[in-house]
Amino acid sequence: MTTLSQIGVTTITTPSDREIRIERIFLAPRDRVWKAFTEPELIAQWWGRGNKLVIERLELYRGGHWRFVEHASEGVHGFEGRYREVTPPERVVQTFEWDGMPGHVAVETMSLEDLGDGRTKLVNVSLFHTTEDRDGMLHSDMEQGLNRSYAALDRVLAGAE
Amino acid sequence: MTTLSQIGVTTITTPSDREIRIERIFLAPRDRVWKAFTEPELIAQWWGRGNKLVIERLELYRGGHWRFVEHASEGVHGFEGRYREVTPPERVVQTFEWDGMPGHVAVETMSLEDLGDGRTKLVNVSLFHTTEDRDGMLHSDMEQGLNRSYAALDRVLAGAE
Repeated sequence: MTTLSQIGVTTITTPSDREIRIERIFLAPRDRVWKAFTEPELIAQWWGRGNKLVIERLELYRGGHWRFVEHASEGVHGFEGRYREVTPPERVVQTFEWDGMPGHVAVETMSLEDLGDGRTKLVNVSLFHTTEDRDGMLHSDMEQGLNRSYAALDRVLAGAE
Repeated sequence: MTTLSQIGVTTITTPSDREIRIERIFLAPRDRVWKAFTEPELIAQWWGRGNKLVIERLELYRGGHWRFVEHASEGVHGFEGRYREVTPPERVVQTFEWDGMPGHVAVETMSLEDLGDGRTKLVNVSLFHTTEDRDGMLHSDMEQGLNRSYAALDRVLAGAE
């Protein structure tokens, strides 16, 4: 059962030695969350932790590539990958790679569950190539960055249709 | 000790449940083998199993991308990836992905050992993301394709400087 206290809380766990699992409930219907994750003008408003984000590539189909560039105060960060599976409005499987560690690729499986009552549960499982890659991500400021991005996403979801 | 019978023989082993290791000795000095693996006009002559190969991208430095398209009689096959490490004339670490299974990425570590007397040992270890990905590669016509490519590479190495 969902309690009000779970809303807005990001749960990060490590189901295996190569995985990171992220779970969070959003106060918005699933179609709206799906759009915020897949439409470039909406992604740009939250994905980059509130920083300016340039969507260089977003080919949302199996085999398509994506590339986002975040312009943060401390520097420019490029991220890219390729789509394995795109199943609206519930599932995307894609690769994820940061320019700072080129060739270190994680596979992300993102799923959106309709909880009813205008709530949606996001589950994102990242499978890294090695435990070292996984631990590198855990020891970055991942949790803080994620919370900043999801706070910005909450604002996008609460905004006008 | 290298025996003459090892020349031209490709040894394929599976050191772990996510890896494929390839070993082969070439009758050419290491610098020459390095060039055949890194110069586009030479790669095009052997990499695609003797088929026409279009080198769309070859950015041979850390973080650079590569993309080769093979035009075989049975169809067109695109391959791509990104360089993690490029250390002439002995080591390249790169990702490898086939368009037919987008987002299924292996990390390849290729090393060239100078055996002296104009012989070079190639060792290529591919670490797949999962055992399923590794087995998919093993059950493709990988060994036959590899032998055709290396036979073409033997001819390139034996050719005029």
